[in-house]
Amino acid sequence: MTAALEPVLKRIDEDFDNSVARLCELLRIKSIGTDPAYDEETRRAAQWCADQFKEMGFDSAVRNTPGQPMVVAHYTPPDATDRTPRVMYYGHYDVQPPDPLELWDSDPFEPTIVEAEHGKRIVARGANDDKGQFMTFVSAFRAWTDVHGSLPVKIIVFLEGEEESASPSLEPFLEANQEELAADICIVSDSEAWSIETPAITYMLRGMVFIDVTLKGPAMDLHSGMYGGGVVNPNNALARILGELHDENGLIQIPGMYDDVRELSEAEAKAWENLGFDDAGFLGGIGLKESTGEKGRTLLQRLWSRPTCDVNGMWGGYIGQGAKTVIPAEAHAKISCRLVPDQDPEKIYNGLVKFLKDRTPPDCTWEIECHGKNPAIRVPTESPYLEAALKGLRATFDNPPVLIGCGGSIPVVGSFQRILGFDSLLAGFGLEDDRIHSPNEKFELKCYHNGIRSQAAMMHSLAELAQ
Amino acid sequence: MTAALEPVLKRIDEDFDNSVARLCELLRIKSIGTDPAYDEETRRAAQWCADQFKEMGFDSAVRNTPGQPMVVAHYTPPDATDRTPRVMYYGHYDVQPPDPLELWDSDPFEPTIVEAEHGKRIVARGANDDKGQFMTFVSAFRAWTDVHGSLPVKIIVFLEGEEESASPSLEPFLEANQEELAADICIVSDSEAWSIETPAITYMLRGMVFIDVTLKGPAMDLHSGMYGGGVVNPNNALARILGELHDENGLIQIPGMYDDVRELSEAEAKAWENLGFDDAGFLGGIGLKESTGEKGRTLLQRLWSRPTCDVNGMWGGYIGQGAKTVIPAEAHAKISCRLVPDQDPEKIYNGLVKFLKDRTPPDCTWEIECHGKNPAIRVPTESPYLEAALKGLRATFDNPPVLIGCGGSIPVVGSFQRILGFDSLLAGFGLEDDRIHSPNEKFELKCYHNGIRSQAAMMHSLAELAQ
Repeated sequence: MTAALEPVLKRIDEDFDNSVARLCELLRIKSIGTDPAYDEETRRAAQWCADQFKEMGFDSAVRNTPGQPMVVAHYTPPDATDRTPRVMYYGHYDVQPPDPLELWDSDPFEPTIVEAEHGKRIVARGANDDKGQFMTFVSAFRAWTDVHGSLPVKIIVFLEGEEESASPSLEPFLEANQEELAADICIVSDSEAWSIETPAITYMLRGMVFIDVTLKGPAMDLHSGMYGGGVVNPNNALARILGELHDENGLIQIPGMYDDVRELSEAEAKAWENLGFDDAGFLGGIGLKESTGEKGRTLLQRLWSRPTCDVNGMWGGYIGQGAKTVIPAEAHAKISCRLVPDQDPEKIYNGLVKFLKDRTPPDCTWEIECHGKNPAIRVPTESPYLEAALKGLRATFDNPPVLIGCGGSIPVVGSFQRILGFDSLLAGFGLEDDRIHSPNEKFELKCYHNGIRSQAAMMHSLAELAQ
Repeated sequence: MTAALEPVLKRIDEDFDNSVARLCELLRIKSIGTDPAYDEETRRAAQWCADQFKEMGFDSAVRNTPGQPMVVAHYTPPDATDRTPRVMYYGHYDVQPPDPLELWDSDPFEPTIVEAEHGKRIVARGANDDKGQFMTFVSAFRAWTDVHGSLPVKIIVFLEGEEESASPSLEPFLEANQEELAADICIVSDSEAWSIETPAITYMLRGMVFIDVTLKGPAMDLHSGMYGGGVVNPNNALARILGELHDENGLIQIPGMYDDVRELSEAEAKAWENLGFDDAGFLGGIGLKESTGEKGRTLLQRLWSRPTCDVNGMWGGYIGQGAKTVIPAEAHAKISCRLVPDQDPEKIYNGLVKFLKDRTPPDCTWEIECHGKNPAIRVPTESPYLEAALKGLRATFDNPPVLIGCGGSIPVVGSFQRILGFDSLLAGFGLEDDRIHSPNEKFELKCYHNGIRSQAAMMHSLAELAQ
């Protein structure tokens, strides 16, 4: 089958200028999905995408939701069998607002080609996130159909227009269209490569439990002179409790927190070590010198494979200018735990609540509200789809691809797994310095080009699974 | 000299209706000192007070300041000697704004006589705080001069119009007029009796150190997914440090905190026990059942004679609705220590700073701002002025007077001591339920009447010190 890929890669190289031109056409559409003033432009971007797939013979449509529309496009090869893999391709056509405009060197919606250290780059809002990223598979589809007249796998393209607005319509849409959206694997193009020379697939994502707590003490705010020393101060009490969340070694004291945490295999630990992650550079970028946290773990392990417990917000009493001698009636905190593979969010939530309730000060009560409970995600390293994707990346880059973790959650991946039941492979081609969400967002043409080639090669490897 | 007092008390009783009428006249003046719209009324109240003293032969004047004016009135008895005590009388003629107006049963500036459990009461803004309170000594002066044609002690009346606005002009005025305001003792009429039957002198006031702290970590707010577990979270770190301010027994862990704390004498401890303070009632009023704090101390001891460390405010990270997974660049707290007699505010401030700095997390720095350092105040129980005041109260109440503490600070008392060098006796006649600062503020006529009699009797006892 390598014979099938070679001419496609050649076609991609020859047609690259047109691929850039098509991306620029899309970048000119101001699809700021979060701003109703741009609703018309946002829908125009959806239609532009749907038309691309229609041109290539997909059954493609703009699908309405209560928010921004979805683009769903289906393709079945003429020679498909039951063994032909069904591959979903995910991306989003909405972009972040471009503000502050004055910090842009050029019009954010007039894509500009600029020469820099890695050669040419496109500067525009959405150049990377996510128009440039998902246009890698759109361009790969086009090259493949140009050469072969058809595509080698069953495809569902799924593009949303609310990714930058927390995707309110996504899950209802998935629930309502489960059968139609059935697939074996999803390729998500919305993440970073390890470097411009080294492609990466993100195979681990942390999950999260997020709660909002209020510790209620006296019936009203009190004067700290009249009452101080004799009654509970919810600020002091809450601080004490939050301070007990970790022990001296950085281990989280929530009951059951480590019961189910999956330890890295020796091979994984070794592979992560071999990534040569630049701890000092990572910390220096945020003004720090030392990694803190769980003792006896590397920084990457702390970030990717160990659970956390962060106080994301806390407040109580007087927080204005100057002095006010108040003992507040209540104190508040927002607490989140990042979860790692095999941890049960429900169990961690219950443990967190127990941790708090076990420490309830005299005369106090808790109000606890949960804002989310999502498990971590881990694509099994023995997955044939993962192996196929890696094979595709090996075919198009000199450096071998790396498997990496991600400390954050990518909600769509959890939604696909929970509602549709398949894993996602995060194969992105952006760079860390692409300034997504910031002025002068850019995408290296080299990344775009390698991305298109990689998408073709991955599709080819996935098709081979049918044999 | 008791012969001198008897006819004065008789005169006070006979003239009481006029004393009420004069108080009502003052209550009708809308001296809302904090609101510039009432500046003219506020000045009219000052003038009204100054005129009262002028009528009784004082050298009395309204004295301008950058804010509301002071009223200063001097009196020297014709037969005064060097041994005649110099007594300052302090009060304030400004009142709190009456809002919310709809919660008043009558016009706040049209004093209304209402019959209730203790007999008649006056309902009006300022009925207690502080017009009713200071009119006790004004009426006592009047009765005394009516009967004897002169007064028995040297007097400086000092009334301010900014007490409800944190007294910005007070200290500069005291500094600028130190010689003129020299006295031996001050009688402050701005506090509460122990009960309607039992008069009280407040002889202990706690002091305070108040600081504002910022714990600074990363150079910017971070995403808790990308960075959580690997870097310091100033919220968690600050909570941990604040949580260490007290040990399991409620003892404050600031270095040197208890070095100089004066223990109560056995006699004082016994006297406080004998007060029969209603712990359950005090706590029930604020929705609590248990007193917490330093182990092995009574509630009154915790409130009056033990130092505290309260977090009056804390904040960091996201404090709005819903979830935001941020690791904040910094976290903040406002921390105050109430101080008790013999503690040095400078030493406690230094100890608090050391406590924080000793716990500085890696890569973090502190910003610390001090909003005030004031020592506690304690009038020596062997003071002849205190003894004289108690004697006066014994002469006018059936129940013996009690000596009490106060957990708060009364800044003017500290200012008098620091700038003018004399102690203050807080002999007030209000009740806890007088609703000062609230709608339907009231003053029991019985309290007013006993207050006038007590002021006459205390003045008589103070005069006896000259013999």
